[in-house]
Amino acid sequence: MSRSAFASLRDEVLAANLRIPAAGLATLTWGNVSGVDREAGVFVIKPSGVPYDRLRAEHLVVVALDDGRVVEGELRPSTDTETHRSLYRAFPSIGGVTHTHSPHAVAFAQARRPIPVLGTTHADTFDGPVPVTEPLSAEQCAADYEFNTGQVIVELLEGDDERARTVPAALVAHHGPFTWGADADGSLEHAVICEAVAEMALHTLSLGAARPPQHLLDRHFTRKHGAGAYYGNPGAV
Amino acid sequence: MSRSAFASLRDEVLAANLRIPAAGLATLTWGNVSGVDREAGVFVIKPSGVPYDRLRAEHLVVVALDDGRVVEGELRPSTDTETHRSLYRAFPSIGGVTHTHSPHAVAFAQARRPIPVLGTTHADTFDGPVPVTEPLSAEQCAADYEFNTGQVIVELLEGDDERARTVPAALVAHHGPFTWGADADGSLEHAVICEAVAEMALHTLSLGAARPPQHLLDRHFTRKHGAGAYYGNPGAV
Amino acid sequence: MSRSAFASLRDEVLAANLRIPAAGLATLTWGNVSGVDREAGVFVIKPSGVPYDRLRAEHLVVVALDDGRVVEGELRPSTDTETHRSLYRAFPSIGGVTHTHSPHAVAFAQARRPIPVLGTTHADTFDGPVPVTEPLSAEQCAADYEFNTGQVIVELLEGDDERARTVPAALVAHHGPFTWGADADGSLEHAVICEAVAEMALHTLSLGAARPPQHLLDRHFTRKHGAGAYYGNPGAV
Amino acid sequence: MSRSAFASLRDEVLAANLRIPAAGLATLTWGNVSGVDREAGVFVIKPSGVPYDRLRAEHLVVVALDDGRVVEGELRPSTDTETHRSLYRAFPSIGGVTHTHSPHAVAFAQARRPIPVLGTTHADTFDGPVPVTEPLSAEQCAADYEFNTGQVIVELLEGDDERARTVPAALVAHHGPFTWGADADGSLEHAVICEAVAEMALHTLSLGAARPPQHLLDRHFTRKHGAGAYYGNPGAV
Repeated sequence: MSRSAFASLRDEVLAANLRIPAAGLATLTWGNVSGVDREAGVFVIKPSGVPYDRLRAEHLVVVALDDGRVVEGELRPSTDTETHRSLYRAFPSIGGVTHTHSPHAVAFAQARRPIPVLGTTHADTFDGPVPVTEPLSAEQCAADYEFNTGQVIVELLEGDDERARTVPAALVAHHGPFTWGADADGSLEHAVICEAVAEMALHTLSLGAARPPQHLLDRHFTRKHGAGAYYGNPGAV
Repeated sequence: MSRSAFASLRDEVLAANLRIPAAGLATLTWGNVSGVDREAGVFVIKPSGVPYDRLRAEHLVVVALDDGRVVEGELRPSTDTETHRSLYRAFPSIGGVTHTHSPHAVAFAQARRPIPVLGTTHADTFDGPVPVTEPLSAEQCAADYEFNTGQVIVELLEGDDERARTVPAALVAHHGPFTWGADADGSLEHAVICEAVAEMALHTLSLGAARPPQHLLDRHFTRKHGAGAYYGNPGAV
Repeated sequence: MSRSAFASLRDEVLAANLRIPAAGLATLTWGNVSGVDREAGVFVIKPSGVPYDRLRAEHLVVVALDDGRVVEGELRPSTDTETHRSLYRAFPSIGGVTHTHSPHAVAFAQARRPIPVLGTTHADTFDGPVPVTEPLSAEQCAADYEFNTGQVIVELLEGDDERARTVPAALVAHHGPFTWGADADGSLEHAVICEAVAEMALHTLSLGAARPPQHLLDRHFTRKHGAGAYYGNPGAV
Repeated sequence: MSRSAFASLRDEVLAANLRIPAAGLATLTWGNVSGVDREAGVFVIKPSGVPYDRLRAEHLVVVALDDGRVVEGELRPSTDTETHRSLYRAFPSIGGVTHTHSPHAVAFAQARRPIPVLGTTHADTFDGPVPVTEPLSAEQCAADYEFNTGQVIVELLEGDDERARTVPAALVAHHGPFTWGADADGSLEHAVICEAVAEMALHTLSLGAARPPQHLLDRHFTRKHGAGAYYGNPGAV
């Protein structure tokens, strides 16, 4: 393959995909990460069915944002590609998207329950519950199913980019979590956090959950996000 | 050992057996995979009691489909060999069989509850619940116990090869999961998926399960299986 | 250190101790295995507080069966040494003893519930529930506490060596599992199995346990134990 | 960087921080350990947001006990630094502090339930339940939030150093566990134990917890702590 115009984005997206198994979120080849280049109007995504331990940057597929055609790549893009495309189109702030079938987040999706805000681990990243969509209708399943899987998330958030930024995750009913972020790696980190808070919530609910005060949650979200953020920034290493 | 006539099948079956511990499905030496050569009328299976980290292709045992005699190999075949043989004889589409004691699938087997279809992770592979057999009768335990362990699965599916293809897994009551597939590796992947969906189902049931719409499940199964399948095929790498 | 008269037993006991972290049963330095030489009237046990990754055969301590004095070794023997000694003295068939704080078995011990027989994974090794002792009395705690920790197991089994052979494990109330076997490694394997069946039982109870037929359980136990045993013997490798 | 006056403490604190991922307690960069030099009036703590696998001793930050200013280091100290400082100031016996978001301990914190004493694993280290604070008030969140996170622990223990020594852990409501010890490594070990006993307690509660007799718990705590302690001391290796 000649040198891609998107070599740097390919490298970023590859690294983020390889964090899926490293973080213990993967079963088989389930799970994929993409990253977008909005100026070029494309995003780079994992190919379908390739095991993580054989995945290389040249396997990644470059897809056009406007119509989903493959711009670069010899393999088929992930089956979930159209879902990613739907999210990129609806939410301009999104730079990367991750989809996994991590077990605790899937459990909430299958129970059609939002992941509730029960503590600061959740509030550090998500300014509210991780919401769950309605199940796709028969019509939404019949045609453009994967694109419509993104659309039910768009509908859930009423297409509001601000909501997508303050809670960068959603559960598709009976399916599983989709997360997003400023770039591919950011979306992957949100997938890790989504699974972690889902596991904590499941255990907490079995003990009998208590309701945290809103001022505590606000404090945690705002110390990481917005103008006054001061959390987790190492300066430089 | 002189070069086996079944060297290639031995290699495939070895690789699939080694995926049992790699996928976290094994306790001690529990779990075994076999693969069949229908033209030659034999299948290759893990020997009994050999740890995975010492297992080599030459340890595998070649067993006759018709009467279960050992055709090649110096070790005793897995105690579960007759169960595998029963499944191969009843279902012509089966090319490989896996048995594990993975904990969440065993929990459903011990509770004598099918693994219910609660979402797309399940529906991608299994076109319906993973069913559970009746317990073996005193007579079925008294003689040919291991062969009868396969027979209760055959009875459960009414010997229907089509059912075996659409739900390539069953739970033997109070025992555990048996899965099958087009070849040894395919049966192993179904064992991995069976455990994953059992874990997800257990968590979902603790949250209060919701019923997914059938059109969603059908969409997922048919996009991976049958004439219109398009999921998970990488083209070539 | 000059060559020990018990070098071979030290090697066996070392290998069995190193299987504790390898099997995922260890937190910190919790867990210890010993093995006995009945002719010499001694057993070899892990020293107290040494991390597994620094443990060497020469660290192990040789202890007299009759009075518990240290026969060889410069380190203190495990705090649980007197519990092991109590079991060796009461049950002549025991060649090795393992104690862990594996979490699911501990949960049953803390709930003072036996691990029930819910399927063949359990029945392959344990011919009945893994029983739980009474809590130690104030008198049993006040003096010779560790020896008495063994004695409550002896009392639970009414000192019956046959019962110790058919169910080679017990839970000490509010403490955790002790297992034993023909040698150090056999006792370790029973600890692994005890934790595995405890985890499966916990999941099964959350689904609503069904009662397995006794003829199935008997079949599994007898195919591995007694005159007609045929399970898990590889012949030779 | 020129040779630090605190090189030895930096090494200790680095080693303890690296045990967080090794013990399976870390998600992303969540979790930090510090160690104090009371003569010098400083403590050494992990910087904010640096992944464990890139962490080196020179990244650690030296912070003044009296006012929290950075004495050495080019990176920002952990966001939790002020919480550590609060604990060091209130409890003179503390030599190290650890904070994690380990999932089972967080579940108890989110449910605002103490981790109950259900057995000897707990009683070996904690002479009573691991208590949970009140949620921080709006005022405590509005200013000096991180310092106040320590203060609610100080209030919970009524500033009693003896209580801090006998139960070296507390749960901050809706947040998670803080543990401490004689030094950095001791505090980390208490974090490992806190998570282990939380997991065991969660499982035990699902089985129906039984109440252990106090004389058993006392026996375990006193054999490891105080004048008559004899547990877990290897002598020398």
